[in-house]
Order: sequence, then C-alpha cells, then structure tokens
Amino acid sequence: MLRGQICSNSELSFLMEAHDGLSAAIAERAGFKGLWASGLSIASSLGYRDANEASWTQLVDAVERIVDSNTLPVLVDGDSGFGNFNNARLLARKLRQRGAAGVAFQDSCFPKMNSFVGERHPLAEIDEFSGRLRAVKDSVGTDLVLVARTEALIADHSMDEAILRAHAFADAGADAILIHSRKSTADEVLSFASAWQNRLPLVIVPTTYYRTPVSVYHDARISTVIWANHSMRAAIVAMRRICDRIIAREGTASIESHIAPLEDIFELFRYDELARAEAKYLHPGDLRP
Amino acid sequence: MLRGQICSNSELSFLMEAHDGLSAAIAERAGFKGLWASGLSIASSLGYRDANEASWTQLVDAVERIVDSNTLPVLVDGDSGFGNFNNARLLARKLRQRGAAGVAFQDSCFPKMNSFVGERHPLAEIDEFSGRLRAVKDSVGTDLVLVARTEALIADHSMDEAILRAHAFADAGADAILIHSRKSTADEVLSFASAWQNRLPLVIVPTTYYRTPVSVYHDARISTVIWANHSMRAAIVAMRRICDRIIAREGTASIESHIAPLEDIFELFRYDELARAEAKYLHPGDLRP
Amino acid sequence: MLRGQICSNSELSFLMEAHDGLSAAIAERAGFKGLWASGLSIASSLGYRDANEASWTQLVDAVERIVDSNTLPVLVDGDSGFGNFNNARLLARKLRQRGAAGVAFQDSCFPKMNSFVGERHPLAEIDEFSGRLRAVKDSVGTDLVLVARTEALIADHSMDEAILRAHAFADAGADAILIHSRKSTADEVLSFASAWQNRLPLVIVPTTYYRTPVSVYHDARISTVIWANHSMRAAIVAMRRICDRIIAREGTASIESHIAPLEDIFELFRYDELARAEAKYLHPGDLRP
Amino acid sequence: MLRGQICSNSELSFLMEAHDGLSAAIAERAGFKGLWASGLSIASSLGYRDANEASWTQLVDAVERIVDSNTLPVLVDGDSGFGNFNNARLLARKLRQRGAAGVAFQDSCFPKMNSFVGERHPLAEIDEFSGRLRAVKDSVGTDLVLVARTEALIADHSMDEAILRAHAFADAGADAILIHSRKSTADEVLSFASAWQNRLPLVIVPTTYYRTPVSVYHDARISTVIWANHSMRAAIVAMRRICDRIIAREGTASIESHIAPLEDIFELFRYDELARAEAKYLHPGDLRP
Repeated sequence: MLRGQICSNSELSFLMEAHDGLSAAIAERAGFKGLWASGLSIASSLGYRDANEASWTQLVDAVERIVDSNTLPVLVDGDSGFGNFNNARLLARKLRQRGAAGVAFQDSCFPKMNSFVGERHPLAEIDEFSGRLRAVKDSVGTDLVLVARTEALIADHSMDEAILRAHAFADAGADAILIHSRKSTADEVLSFASAWQNRLPLVIVPTTYYRTPVSVYHDARISTVIWANHSMRAAIVAMRRICDRIIAREGTASIESHIAPLEDIFELFRYDELARAEAKYLHPGDLRP
Repeated sequence: MLRGQICSNSELSFLMEAHDGLSAAIAERAGFKGLWASGLSIASSLGYRDANEASWTQLVDAVERIVDSNTLPVLVDGDSGFGNFNNARLLARKLRQRGAAGVAFQDSCFPKMNSFVGERHPLAEIDEFSGRLRAVKDSVGTDLVLVARTEALIADHSMDEAILRAHAFADAGADAILIHSRKSTADEVLSFASAWQNRLPLVIVPTTYYRTPVSVYHDARISTVIWANHSMRAAIVAMRRICDRIIAREGTASIESHIAPLEDIFELFRYDELARAEAKYLHPGDLRP
Repeated sequence: MLRGQICSNSELSFLMEAHDGLSAAIAERAGFKGLWASGLSIASSLGYRDANEASWTQLVDAVERIVDSNTLPVLVDGDSGFGNFNNARLLARKLRQRGAAGVAFQDSCFPKMNSFVGERHPLAEIDEFSGRLRAVKDSVGTDLVLVARTEALIADHSMDEAILRAHAFADAGADAILIHSRKSTADEVLSFASAWQNRLPLVIVPTTYYRTPVSVYHDARISTVIWANHSMRAAIVAMRRICDRIIAREGTASIESHIAPLEDIFELFRYDELARAEAKYLHPGDLRP
Repeated sequence: MLRGQICSNSELSFLMEAHDGLSAAIAERAGFKGLWASGLSIASSLGYRDANEASWTQLVDAVERIVDSNTLPVLVDGDSGFGNFNNARLLARKLRQRGAAGVAFQDSCFPKMNSFVGERHPLAEIDEFSGRLRAVKDSVGTDLVLVARTEALIADHSMDEAILRAHAFADAGADAILIHSRKSTADEVLSFASAWQNRLPLVIVPTTYYRTPVSVYHDARISTVIWANHSMRAAIVAMRRICDRIIAREGTASIESHIAPLEDIFELFRYDELARAEAKYLHPGDLRP
C-alpha cells in the first residue's frame, strides 16, 4: 500500500507526520492515506533531542504505538540506521515486525544531528552507506519500502554529489530517493528532480520551502511529499496557549470551547468497542447491551 | 516540593496535565509549579484506552520521559495500582526511582474503566484498598506524596460512603485525599470538603465542573486543583485542524503562522546546550565556541 | 507447527522451557522441537517473583528475545491474561506480533501466585474465564494455538470441577487443555485424562510427578509434555557451584573445564555470519572473505 | 561501596559477572561483594551478539533487573558509550538512576565487536574518547565510579600506546583504569601494571589468562579482578547437559538431583516475604500469620 503510494508515477502522495498513537489516529481520521513516523517529532515527544538520544528500541516502541492506533501505512524515519549495516538491518527487521510499511535511512554518521540544526553534518561514505542499504534489502526484501535519503545538500555538498549519491543508493537497492533540503525555496529539490530524470520515485520534505504549491511537485514528477512535523508543531502552539490561559484565568472555563470534548477521545479510540466487548465477553448473561 | 504544594494549607496549588516529554516541558515554561502525569492522557498518547491497557511498566517509562524533560515535581496517576498491594508497592518504588514526586491510587478494581465512561465502576473493598496504601507507605515512606483517591461518587455511592472511605484511607497513611466527581457542578466536592473538615489536604479534578471559579475552592480550603487532561485536549483540536487544512489546501503555506517554528523546539529542548557540549567535549581543540 | 505438535494424536510432543535468548538457543541445538516460555523462569530471570510482578509488556519483550534466538515454535505461559478479557486479547495480539506460536491462559485471578506456592489460589469464575478465551479466539483466530489451563486441582477442587471447567473451556474455543497438578505422582492427571476421553488434546507439566515414564503419558493419549523449568534450575545449580568455587579457590583456573568456551557462545549466536556480513556490506572492496 | 572496593589500595577486590536478576542474586548469596554487569553476558542472555546489537536502553533495563535483585554494588560494562560523548553521558545518568554503582567505558568506536572476536577493533581517538569521559564525569560526578578501559592491547597497539591512553584517560577524570588483554598469560597486564606505577587503581579481566594465581595480581598492586562471564558460561554447560539428558532419557527423573529444587527459587527471591506481606496487607483480619 505504501509501495503503491510512493512508487506510483500517476499521482502525488502525501504522508502526514505522527509521533504517537494520538497524532496518528487523528491523521487517519482527517483523511491522510499514509503516515511519516518522524524522528524529530518522536524525539520531541519523548523529551529527547533529535540527535540519536532516543535508542533504536525506543524508536521501535514508538512506531508500534503509531502503527497500532490506525490502519494507515507508516513510513518510518530510521535516521542513519543507528550504527552500521548490522544495526540498520536489525532495526528494519524490528520495524517490519511491528507493522511498519517502509523505512527511510539517511547517509549520515551516527549519532547524527537534526538536519535543521548547525553546520556539522558529516556524510557517510557512499560505499559504506550503500552497504547499509544492501544489508537492509537482503534482510527485509520487499516487505518494507526502502527509502534512501541523502543529506548531501544539507551538508552543503554540490548537486552533483547529491545525484551521484542517489544513483549509488539506487544501485544498492533503494525503492525511492528522499532528497532533503533546508532552503527556503524549492529550487534545490526541483533541480535535483530535473537532473534525476525519475530513475526512482522521489520523496521530498518541504519543511522550510513550504510556499511552493504542490502542483509544482506534481509537474516535476515528484512522487511523495512528507509533511514532516506539522502536527507536533501545531500541538505545541495549542498546549502553550492553553497553559498560558489556564494560568492567566486561574481556571478552564474560558477554554472549554478550544479543547476537544472527552467524548472525542472516547470516540477516537473506540471505547464503544470496549463496552460492546464487555457485554459480550465479561457479562454474557446480562441483559444490558 | 510536591509535598509543600499539596500539603500546604496556606495556598491553593495547581497541577497541569502532562502526557509526554513535550507537554511537560511546555507546562513548565508556561509557569506551572507541578505536573499531573494523567492516566487518560498517557493512555491516549500511547493509542491505548484508559482501561489499564497500558502495562504498568509502560506507565513508568512514560513518567520517566515526563520527569526528565523538566524540573517540576510530578504527581503520577497510578490508577488502582495495577493489581493488589504487591503490584502497587512495586509501581510506587519504580516511580520513585524514575523521579516522580508523588502517586495517586484510586479505590478501583483492576482493570479499571475511565471514570467518565459508563456506569460500571466497582469499588475495591475498603480494607483491601487500605492494605494497598499501607504497603505503599511502608515501601516508599515519605519519598513520595501518597494521594488516596476515592471513586465512591463516580460509582454512585453516597457522600457518607465517600467520607467513610476517605477516613479509612487517611488511617492507612495517605498524605492527601483526592475526591473525584463527574458532576457538571462542584456541589459534590464542596459537600465533601465541608464534611471532611480538612483532616488531610484535599485534591480535586474539575474536569466536568469547570465553571466554578477557583476562589470557591480556596474558600473551601481545598489544597490542590488538577487540570487533568487539558493539554492533550488542546493538542487534539490543533492537530485535527492542521490536518484538515493541509488536506484542504494541499500544502502548509497557509498554516505556518499557526504552528511553532522549529526554533521553538530547539529552544525548548536546549539544543544550544548540545552545541556547546559538542564544542567542549567533541572538538576541544577547535576555536569555534 | 506448534499446532501440529500439540494437536496431533499420533505422537507425544515435548516442549522445553526457555527463559531468555540463551536458554532458547541451547534447547534448539539440543534437538527439542518446541519451547515453553515459562512464567516462573522468565520471572526468575528478571529477578521477579512468579506472582505477576513482571508487567505484561515485560513478558512480551522476554518472549520476543526467546523467539528471535531460534526457529522453534514457542508456546507462551500467558498466566491468567494479566487482567480481564481485554487484557488477555491484547496480550495475545502482541504475542502473535512477536512471533509466538501459541499461548496458554489459566483460570486464575489477577494477580496470581505460583502454583507450587501456598494454598491460596482462587479460581476465576467459569463464565468469566470462558469469556477471556472467546475474546482471545476472536482476536487471533488460528494464528496462535490457544491452550486453556485449569488450576482446579492446584486449588484443591474436585476432579469433577476440573473436568467441568475443561469442557467449558473447550466450548469457549480452546485448542487444547492443560491440566495442572502438583502431586508427586501422575495419578491426578491420568485420572483426568481418563475422564476427559480426548475431546481435545491434553497438555501436562510433570514438574512434581517426574518419576512417571513418558510411555505412560503416551498410553494415556496425552498430547504434549512440558519440561517447564529445568533449564533454569540446572543453571542455578551450575552458577551457584561456579561462584562457590571461584570464591574458594580465588580464581577460575580450576573451573575452566566446567564452563563453556567463549567459542561456543560465538558459534551459538553465529558470530561467523556477522563476520561474513561485515565482509560483504562493510568492506565490499576488501579481498578478505 | 564500589568506590571503596575498586579504589582501595589495601586489598584486591573481585567482581562477579551477572547478566540477569537470577545470576545476580546467586552471586550475592555465594558471598561476592560486587557485580560486573557484563556486556557479553547480557547480550547473550538477550540472544544478541556482543556487537552493540542490544540498544542502550535494553542495557539499562537489564541493569535495572540486576540491581533490583540484590544489594551489591554493580559496575556496568558500558561498552564505548553507545555513540559520542552525548550518548555516553545520557547512558551514565540513566545507569545512576537505575542504581548502578559504576560504569566502564572503553575506547572503541560504535558499534564495537567483542574483544575476543576477530582482528578489527579500531580505537577511538584519544581526544575524542577523553571528551566522552569528561562529559560523563561532568554529568554524574562522583555518583558513579568511572572506569576507563583501553582496548589498545586488544587492537594490537603497543604497550606505550596503552600507557599513553591510560594517562590521557586519567587526566580526563577516570577513577580507575581497566587494561584489557586477550593473551593466554598475564604478561601484558603485569607489564602494564609495572609501567603504570599505580597512578590510578587498575582493573583487569583475566578471561583468557586464567592460570595466573591472584596473589600475583595482589603483588602487582592491581585493585580489582573481574570474573567477567563465568556464570553464564557455567549455565550454558548445565543447560546443554540437561537438555541432552532429557531428550536421551525422555524424562527428568534422572536429573532431579542435578537441578535446584523449586524451593531454592522461592527462597532466593523471598517468596516468604510475599506471603507475610499478603497476611499483613491483604488479609489483615485473618488469624493466619
């Protein structure tokens, strides 16, 4: 299903960020067709920094909660694979077990630093990172969509280097390429798309270059757009505001219309199913429904 | 510190809900002086229902992430203790280890159902639940503030029963009593406060009776008010809205002003400390700061 | 595969206890065809008492390590299901996800006490426990072999009660019945087998009645025998002895012939595969194999 | 307490390997005064290879189970710190929280390979590894004994390099130096000890050079000897033998005298305390003790 979305040429797909069971369930209800288990958002939710502070099993556990709360395919931000080829393939196998649909690995060293922070983003050697991809491919085959992400442009390398890397990663077995950029316009990713000539599907993350209309991506034959951290960032604003107001007003009376009723939570997580199951399994003899 | 807040008679204290590291860090920044690690919110964040689906160690792990992201004292919603006296004291010891400041146990059977859902909320026997409290007290002493919560009114028992239970729980060593009500007015908790005569500090959770001004609680000599799920409920509204708009507008250009800049995340989790530490520990010879 | 073993009438099957990845790998090498992820042994390995001190997710994580270290089908000791029908079905789904082949649930209350300890082993109501079984069956279908274990004889109930319970659990969808006994002879389980008349396959755990030759079980048409804790108990003796000797001799020279060479560990966990994979993925250009 | 043992010059100390709650409890009963939470043994227990397959949080969780099952101080094998200075200090803080008494970090790259396997053991740069140590020291101060382990001799570097590294690590704040060797005699570690001149306490791990009597280490003014994997290796032999015999004899009758009685487990983990606590907290009105 994720394969169909990411690897289809006919249509532009969108993946929405999720960082926990709640945000994932909400994204599904809103109508998204796929999720991005974001490293930055999961780290933030856990109170960690996006610099491989969370362990790889903490990531796996977070992904499990995301997968279990909805029916959408989940593409997981696997960072650099948390070590070498062996760590990467172990992570991939566990993500498959927990129900992920795909994983993206980036050509960074471990531990990495968030792509939007600072200037030090040393890239992995092409051969070594290609080895990570091959190991993952040999481990999970087609069970997971394997997205190779290059940080070449983040690390201030040339477009040629980015293209060179993408081809190497395609040779290594990637199903799609994620070209990351932190420019405020889409120029970089569009140049890349043009030079890439659609050898494999392209995935982009327009976090900083948000102004470009998606029709541009469609025309550039980009396959998938990831809205990579927007639920979390929306939640931050909302939680901050509610905290401020509760403190200022010494109470919640004035905010009731700004927060979800409890019933929404009960509906979102199907408490009605639990009630029906109680009637069925716990009190089968009762007349109560 | 939590003891000072909850057990002080001089001043009304407020605890703000947190369900993960992010919400906890935000509540601290907003100026709250203590946190409530809410069972409902943590369950929802994990994609579970608030019916003891999450295991007790998943609760402990979530509390650890909450505690580690800020410096506030955290009162943990320990539900019914996840079993008998032995499970309750084991949980309490682990919460102490992870840095919690207090724990609230309620006189429910295991597994419980969220207090706002349905009509079946069988209470634990007074003696048995008192045994749970005594076991916890004997295990953690004064290291944790021990709050005994009675669900008597939730379970449609009489005010007399609620008072009777509170006295028994005080006898068993509780440091404070949490009287829970799901009425739309504060009448129940105020009646309770009046009858209770301040034998021990009182804690309330005005989720459904949100209209009452806190001055009323102050006058009733209530010690602590818990805003029990408001950050999560605010986040739900915000995430839902952002999802809807991204889908409707096919893009994020129009929502940028409604979401937190990435820099806010980096500031909240002190990425600057990491940069300074890199300079200090990783590249001590470099001239760069 | 486990279904074939447990539910076959043609042959008596044996399951060997495992409590971690190491004991599981060893049992496979020795030639066993199936494993029993023992509650007592896992609890002991974790330093817990076999009284539901370990959380249900700690059990799931332990089972994952057992499953991942070998290729045998694993029947998991699911205790009473860690709560009601909802907890039991959640546990079953997670065990299926981690690769378990079957799960056994016993008709005890939560938290339980180890069957060999003390006299207080209150049984669950037949209807309520049958509801747990039905819920599990409806959740995992035939993906897991569902073994219903009755503690009726442990709890000093009559043989009639045990048979009554077994029939109820068969009606509820169990694939096999585990009849537990802590007598020093096999009389109880043989009487049960005789009265049961093979409606469903029978599983037994001859921990205390170890003297009976297995040919007797074969003749009684018992399906499966579980050696439920013997690896752990052997390990205890060995570790105790080695500790004593190291202290007494102030050194390990005299024990080298009593401990496994490091090479055995490297062979058991296939360090050679890692070396070959390093050559393949990490240093593909090297001439070294 | 661990500090007293490791940093005392008056007496040679011994640490016994533990890999789970069971092995730790047994080592305490045998009379050991301190434990070594061995990376190799914990990995093997989890079914992983000793090549940083287990995540750092899985290590922390394993250490927690070891610490909780006994009262001895535990020195943890922290490998290379699971990344850079930031990962190392995070790990150290968590080990402190779970009750560890000390941590040993080795000057390897991440992921590492077990010291006894293969020839590729690239060392970390001295400055970079010193930064890891300083970061840990600045994080946990004197709460944990900080042991710096050099793999210089394992990696076939010269004695001069080993000494150079040890001095650098002492300058960086280490409380003790672990000099590792995989020779079949103690010559290397004794040469090191002689050249080191006792600037800081020395720790050794005589796994391969087991023939040397400990009096030699005493004379060489070595502080601490770690028996690093012997309980696990004893358990392997025992479990293998018991599996073989059960299969060969089709039963356990002949092995009963070779395995610990269940009562030993109940005694080791103090099931009697649970029985007394039940009487006290669960059935306070009962006459039974």
